[in-house]
Amino acid sequence: MNIKENWIQFIHGLQDDICAAIENEDGQAKFREDAWQRLEGGGGRTRIICNGNVFEKGGVNTSIVFGDVTEAMTSQLKINGHKWFACGLSLVLHPVNPFVPTIHCNYRMFELYNEAGETVDRWFGGGTDLTPYYLDVADVTHFHKTYKDACDKFDVGFYPHFKKECDNYFVNWHRNQERRGIGGIFYDYQRPAGERDASFWMNFAKTCGYAFIDAYLPVVSKHKADEFSESHKFWQEIRRGRYVEFNLVHDRGTIFGLKTNGRTESILMSLPPTVRFEYDYQPEPGSPEDELLQACLHPRDWLSINN
Amino acid sequence: MNIKENWIQFIHGLQDDICAAIENEDGQAKFREDAWQRLEGGGGRTRIICNGNVFEKGGVNTSIVFGDVTEAMTSQLKINGHKWFACGLSLVLHPVNPFVPTIHCNYRMFELYNEAGETVDRWFGGGTDLTPYYLDVADVTHFHKTYKDACDKFDVGFYPHFKKECDNYFVNWHRNQERRGIGGIFYDYQRPAGERDASFWMNFAKTCGYAFIDAYLPVVSKHKADEFSESHKFWQEIRRGRYVEFNLVHDRGTIFGLKTNGRTESILMSLPPTVRFEYDYQPEPGSPEDELLQACLHPRDWLSINN
Repeated sequence: MNIKENWIQFIHGLQDDICAAIENEDGQAKFREDAWQRLEGGGGRTRIICNGNVFEKGGVNTSIVFGDVTEAMTSQLKINGHKWFACGLSLVLHPVNPFVPTIHCNYRMFELYNEAGETVDRWFGGGTDLTPYYLDVADVTHFHKTYKDACDKFDVGFYPHFKKECDNYFVNWHRNQERRGIGGIFYDYQRPAGERDASFWMNFAKTCGYAFIDAYLPVVSKHKADEFSESHKFWQEIRRGRYVEFNLVHDRGTIFGLKTNGRTESILMSLPPTVRFEYDYQPEPGSPEDELLQACLHPRDWLSINN
Repeated sequence: MNIKENWIQFIHGLQDDICAAIENEDGQAKFREDAWQRLEGGGGRTRIICNGNVFEKGGVNTSIVFGDVTEAMTSQLKINGHKWFACGLSLVLHPVNPFVPTIHCNYRMFELYNEAGETVDRWFGGGTDLTPYYLDVADVTHFHKTYKDACDKFDVGFYPHFKKECDNYFVNWHRNQERRGIGGIFYDYQRPAGERDASFWMNFAKTCGYAFIDAYLPVVSKHKADEFSESHKFWQEIRRGRYVEFNLVHDRGTIFGLKTNGRTESILMSLPPTVRFEYDYQPEPGSPEDELLQACLHPRDWLSINN
């Protein structure tokens, strides 16, 4: 089995396994699948969950897309080649309970071919980031520790590097560099080279992809029955507004997808179910809401002993 | 009094008059003013109304801003000059009642100066557009007729031209060219020339600016006490989602403001107070919700006798 087939099998297996784990955690809602095809080549399996016990809205989507390298791709994405192929998984979950964080992850592989059909370039990207509404340091530490352990199996330099990349990517630049959440890991344009061949990066994606279950579900389990009031929900909806702002104003994948005739409903499954935009809303200094906001404004080293 | 001073006086007068008319229509809420200053030059008066009898959220903002022409302005906006000046009013109102439409308008003047401080270029822009949640053809006709009458005083070619510009601007390109609402008028880069001197364009802006009161408030008055259910509110929030998508993904003014260190809170006052994003939501064919959607997908000539 070649790399491409191997990757596709991994992505579909990960989708099945994650969906099963989420349905199990929710205890009520089931995913609905929309299989779609793309005129220019390929298609996807969009799986949506909504109005669950735990998850108010979410999606675990895979896609396998390919086509000719267009002029727009060459000029905007600096992609040189004759044909391209991409396959990945993208996941976003928006829980009902404001004490359960929102989560996002994405793992993808991209290939480029010359006119003879030979692979001339290949790269891997991915990551995961957590967006809590209230700060529970134990949860955040557990989340980061799980990904550090996953990274450390491959290179002890990965976690600090990819953690920083994550802090630098999910940023609402128009809001004083407020981050979308408390980070995670993010990597892109990782090209196989030397001992770090395609298998290495595929195994890295597998390890990180499955780490989602250990990193996130215990946090869900811990908080899904927490009592909450209207004011907690209000704050959750304010923060969801920032999620919308990041995704629509800054996220490269979302904007590129929307502007290049991607499947809109699959792309925008990432938007939260109910959202609130208030003029100049400021949480009270020192409040639990403000504590979360400060963590988004000032990324920390969550695994430092001083934290 | 020169053109610039005249324009500033008009904009501030329009702000006062429109705010008074809105407060009168609401009957409860009052505008709160935030005066702000811009480090690079100028500032503004942001006036926000919220949680009123009629208006759930809205803003009537003015700004007077100026500065040096930067490289980004030259490359991205094709602006050539030494210093620039801009002054305008921007208004968005999001009503509580789903049978009352949302409205937006904007009137602005831009000037460019050479190193000697002489005005080397000047242009006017503006317009207004209506975003109903349910289609009331009589309302929409009244709205368009009011602006046609305003335009006709200046040039009978204006209304058809600027109506088309509006239909072509407020478009969610990623949603099958669905419009944000049922249109209105939109004009930009109108440079004084011949008989159409600066006074002409200033008077045009005044006439259109004040037409807001006649075009919109009777519609508000007619529907503000309409009974509505949760399902009407649900649909309003779905449509508000499209408003968010347009403003954050496509609106040139919003994106430019956010990416060039504009005052975020003043720019994003345009976002609706509560919003809902549902995966692949489709109104039932033939329903009142679908009727509105069809009007957004297929712009009409509302003043044609066949409509």
